Amino acid sequence: VQVRLDQLGELGLIRLLSSRAMRQDPGVRVGVGDDAAVVLPCPGADLLLTCDALVEGIHFRRAWYAGHPEKLGRKALAVNLSDVAAMGGWPRYCLVTLLAEPAMPLDFVLGVYDGLEGLARESGTTLVGGDTVRLESGFILDVFLVGEVESGAALLRSGARPGDLIAVTGDFGLARAGLEVLERGELEPSGKARPAAGAGDRALAVARQLEPPVRLGEARALAALGCLHALSDTSDGLSRQVRLIGEASQVGAVVEAGAVPVHPATARLAALHGLDPLDWALAGGEEYELIAALAPADLDQAQAAVAALGRTRLKPVGQFTAAPGFGLRGDGGRLTQLPDEGFEHFRGGVERVSGG
Amino acid sequence: VQVRLDQLGELGLIRLLSSRAMRQDPGVRVGVGDDAAVVLPCPGADLLLTCDALVEGIHFRRAWYAGHPEKLGRKALAVNLSDVAAMGGWPRYCLVTLLAEPAMPLDFVLGVYDGLEGLARESGTTLVGGDTVRLESGFILDVFLVGEVESGAALLRSGARPGDLIAVTGDFGLARAGLEVLERGELEPSGKARPAAGAGDRALAVARQLEPPVRLGEARALAALGCLHALSDTSDGLSRQVRLIGEASQVGAVVEAGAVPVHPATARLAALHGLDPLDWALAGGEEYELIAALAPADLDQAQAAVAALGRTRLKPVGQFTAAPGFGLRGDGGRLTQLPDEGFEHFRGGVERVSGG
Repeated sequence: VQVRLDQLGELGLIRLLSSRAMRQDPGVRVGVGDDAAVVLPCPGADLLLTCDALVEGIHFRRAWYAGHPEKLGRKALAVNLSDVAAMGGWPRYCLVTLLAEPAMPLDFVLGVYDGLEGLARESGTTLVGGDTVRLESGFILDVFLVGEVESGAALLRSGARPGDLIAVTGDFGLARAGLEVLERGELEPSGKARPAAGAGDRALAVARQLEPPVRLGEARALAALGCLHALSDTSDGLSRQVRLIGEASQVGAVVEAGAVPVHPATARLAALHGLDPLDWALAGGEEYELIAALAPADLDQAQAAVAALGRTRLKPVGQFTAAPGFGLRGDGGRLTQLPDEGFEHFRGGVERVSGG
Repeated sequence: VQVRLDQLGELGLIRLLSSRAMRQDPGVRVGVGDDAAVVLPCPGADLLLTCDALVEGIHFRRAWYAGHPEKLGRKALAVNLSDVAAMGGWPRYCLVTLLAEPAMPLDFVLGVYDGLEGLARESGTTLVGGDTVRLESGFILDVFLVGEVESGAALLRSGARPGDLIAVTGDFGLARAGLEVLERGELEPSGKARPAAGAGDRALAVARQLEPPVRLGEARALAALGCLHALSDTSDGLSRQVRLIGEASQVGAVVEAGAVPVHPATARLAALHGLDPLDWALAGGEEYELIAALAPADLDQAQAAVAALGRTRLKPVGQFTAAPGFGLRGDGGRLTQLPDEGFEHFRGGVERVSGG
């Protein structure tokens, strides 16, 4: 028999969550259970503060995580770790606000916490508290993350210089393809009986959407070089992020369409739909890759530092420019406007689940 | 014409909120606008981390704040300030996750931020970031607060000793009375035409529910004495908090019914309903008063420290005991069980708005 949250009660849930074996952390004087957590900052470090919420019906559907709720917990933390990575720092402490409908199965909630605590352990983060609130319906996880970075060394969006390369980790568009697969089942235009994309491609795309990469190691390796002028992540889409860095740095940018890394599975899934995978790659969303600005002369060492970790590569996709504006150079050399797209939560139909 | 959030878009809202004149704070290297905020901790202090969400339909109704949304923003921060006060610390930085339906009027949202920033300024807190997410319906504010306290000096729940007095600021039951007034309009039993409670009493009760006190000054004054064994706040109700401190400290407690401070307005409003105001005072909820454990010999100086601020008094309401269990001593000396009540979010009817 499944236990529901309302059968346990809020205090029961808090007690159950508090009693779980937490990561031991000498920096924690008082964890869950008092009015606030008491933790020690690292002497001489600056604090990084960020929060990101995952909302059912906006960022995900519960059915996506049926049978593996731990992936939802991991993602809720991962999107926040990405913000700390994007500053060149390391994560330390997190709090989690859980908002859930009374009929929510306890097993699902505990699975979410399993995933969250698993990634917390792997990333050196300690869960030290939170809040639990009943919702009339739905499920929301809001994670608050405290990270640290060497004093004065945070990598901002505002440091890009004209002539800097735009370099990115990973590849783009696959998480968006995964969203399409999840939403449409097979990525088939409705009513048509085209051949389905390969199961392997579909599984890969879905995994990218549900299990984003965590680029903490790559970010720290890059930060250690001391040569990055700007760093951010691409959670709002590659195009959008190039624009945000450009605006913050008061420079323009040109992205080379042919240089944007696209996974072969993304290309195959897009082809099935008669779409250009570049559209997914540029507008994207839910892609937690790093995007850096650095002098061309520093590219080799930066690429070596990322490659040394063996998980991804750093690839130049364009250049920041003294000339204002944001361009996309196509294969034939033709320059068009870089799309100003990215998911906006308050616009668009409510029936559409989308990343961002 | 009212502007709705979906007409502005998420990026538009973020830009609008980012452009507002923020409190200047030399501790903030990077505020709103990058991947994470970068702030400086106070050297030698421990960090206090807490979060509390206010959820429409659970903690409040939007109609309560029609015409004065700033009170909702103030309360969202106040409930978190109360947690930092309850540790004996001071607040520094906050992040706000705003979850709102697309049709939400922009004016209401800006009013909420006005209130939040107003109380932030008054309390020495700086708003350094957050997240904005579309909800299908409703309105949620989740505030994350970073506070500080002298290293090793946080006041916990677990330090109460047998023989310690239980001492509280403020009075109890009035916020609960305010909830009844808000929910029933006049606190009249349905269908009966009893005389309404005085408008003054009703206004006072509603104000207590919507505008909780902030006991940061009193908590710091008490902490400075160095004589408190335990400190907490009473947001979950007086009875519940006595039990939580007792359990954490492995002591019992006896509360003197006649000593629990009850405002005359609370008593009058309860009388109108044929209720015992003590029931409201003990179960309460949404009452952000301090509750301390201290040796009887230290009461005078503690009372003087609180009284010196001119806003409230510190009043003993019972004693922690070596004998286990939690009792309530009535006027005639009869000992009964201290009620184990307090609002639990996952239990109870969803139609009922309640504190907690």
